[in-house]
Amino acid sequence: MAETILSKFFAGDVRSLSRLLTLVEDGHPDASRILAEVYPRARHAYRVGITGAPGAGKSTLVNLLAAQEMQSGDSVAVIAVDPTSPFTGGALLGDRIRFDYPEPKPGQKPAFFRSAASRGHTGGLARSTEEMAVLLDAFGYQRLIIESVGVGQVGLDIAEAADTTVVVLVPESGDDIQAEKAGLMEIADILVVNKADRPGAATLVDDLRQAARLRHAHRLPGWTPPVVTTRAQTGEGIADLAQQIETHRSFRLSQQGPEGMRRSRLKQVLLNLLREELRVAVNEAVGQGKLPGGRPLDGVLDEVVAGREDPFTAARTAVLRLMKGLP
Amino acid sequence: MAETILSKFFAGDVRSLSRLLTLVEDGHPDASRILAEVYPRARHAYRVGITGAPGAGKSTLVNLLAAQEMQSGDSVAVIAVDPTSPFTGGALLGDRIRFDYPEPKPGQKPAFFRSAASRGHTGGLARSTEEMAVLLDAFGYQRLIIESVGVGQVGLDIAEAADTTVVVLVPESGDDIQAEKAGLMEIADILVVNKADRPGAATLVDDLRQAARLRHAHRLPGWTPPVVTTRAQTGEGIADLAQQIETHRSFRLSQQGPEGMRRSRLKQVLLNLLREELRVAVNEAVGQGKLPGGRPLDGVLDEVVAGREDPFTAARTAVLRLMKGLP
Repeated sequence: MAETILSKFFAGDVRSLSRLLTLVEDGHPDASRILAEVYPRARHAYRVGITGAPGAGKSTLVNLLAAQEMQSGDSVAVIAVDPTSPFTGGALLGDRIRFDYPEPKPGQKPAFFRSAASRGHTGGLARSTEEMAVLLDAFGYQRLIIESVGVGQVGLDIAEAADTTVVVLVPESGDDIQAEKAGLMEIADILVVNKADRPGAATLVDDLRQAARLRHAHRLPGWTPPVVTTRAQTGEGIADLAQQIETHRSFRLSQQGPEGMRRSRLKQVLLNLLREELRVAVNEAVGQGKLPGGRPLDGVLDEVVAGREDPFTAARTAVLRLMKGLP
Repeated sequence: MAETILSKFFAGDVRSLSRLLTLVEDGHPDASRILAEVYPRARHAYRVGITGAPGAGKSTLVNLLAAQEMQSGDSVAVIAVDPTSPFTGGALLGDRIRFDYPEPKPGQKPAFFRSAASRGHTGGLARSTEEMAVLLDAFGYQRLIIESVGVGQVGLDIAEAADTTVVVLVPESGDDIQAEKAGLMEIADILVVNKADRPGAATLVDDLRQAARLRHAHRLPGWTPPVVTTRAQTGEGIADLAQQIETHRSFRLSQQGPEGMRRSRLKQVLLNLLREELRVAVNEAVGQGKLPGGRPLDGVLDEVVAGREDPFTAARTAVLRLMKGLP
């Protein structure tokens, strides 16, 4: 069955794309094989990651940006990721307003939108997002916009695994900007102040510009994240944002070349996937009554419950043994 | 220096407690040794984990619950954890209203409040929360309330590592309850519908009661999570919530005994710590240019960039080798 879908997929059939996306999201047994087969063709799309706090107006911004990017003639797809879904029921994605993307030009695919929500407690969202991105890339979308709700580690990780990472803030966050900087500045290639008509916008822009200059540019030496102001409600600033993304892309290409750019993104992807695989593997080992590294869980718990060993040392020792490949 | 603080800590000096909490939160080099020394004394506190979506009114509820629990004569401490802090600047904790806890009775310590916010991108929040809990326990607090913003894996994990886990919902979440159930029902020992005067409260209560009955009771066979209605603004329902926590505690004690109860909590703690240690270890290995398991990162990236290997397989293989202790 998977063979037929795959050949239709390679022939450009959108329904087969949708079916493969679902198959991959559901963790179908064929998924690994399909992805391995598709992967060599998935090497061309430029990825923009967009993140920010809930309520920053990301979804409207992303819709407008996708429409703007279609003007280049490239085919554009959006993946919207909500790592908070076990608690919000995916509401942060669900209340997204339907958006009329522009008619495609000749040779251009219609804009494609897909959401990816965490299914319960087991995780796996970084992996399924990456799998979807690979499928969309292999299908021929040249630009992927990956929108992620910026809460928690997974939201940050997913946004960081892009060629250009855009962080969206709103003026309300002005007072807390000192505290926010650590996590945000670290992953931002471009900063957006949305709802820029609100009071406090100018101060926030100034603060961000200053912070961006001081920022340790570990991602890309020589690049200072620009601060773009937008009003998603009116579309103001969207063309500027698209332009800044192009500038960042050109800068990266000139510094790193296309292979270097892909390499640095794939390093982050690999790191995200490793973290998730490890979490799954630890859960499995514990399910089988063992600590990773092989020490029986019951024996360790005996020591910890009796107060003869503390759980911090027990966890650290297990991981150290594991990382050294000791039995 | 640490020795002097430790002996003052054991003598009941609150300032030394505060200093040790800070020292541990900052990841001071002496932290491991101090915790190992303190750990054998930290075996008595009953831990209540409280979680729920931002805006559910948890902080007011927790303040009132702490005040209510002080009536028992036990000493009560609160740790409020915000895993979203890189994005909110800890605002979800910061806007907490100052609360006048009751005067302590003879032999009772004053209520203690402490917040724990994620410091940037590196994580470690499950660990620092647990370390704080161990210190507060060893200091003599008999009840710990651990409040955690219920977004993302870490928020859920921290709430689950308790003796009684309380999940707080508000009527707005009514429509999405189907989608929420997976993550919430799995960790809830008690369900609270806060802001119970709002429209939709009765429906939500009905839905939750039904879901709670159908729930696979893997945590504690024979226990059906009760649904408590509260209005944190007026204090309505708080005594009922405290009562349900006592009922759950008695039920667990009768089924598992004190050692069994501690054991099942410590199992979850150990799992959380393992996950975090592994994340740190993976970051370190990658920082040193290796995949966990020892394969050179550069070589793997060469294959992935060239499209000869996909990142999903590369990550999975590395983790499988690691878990088997292969070099």
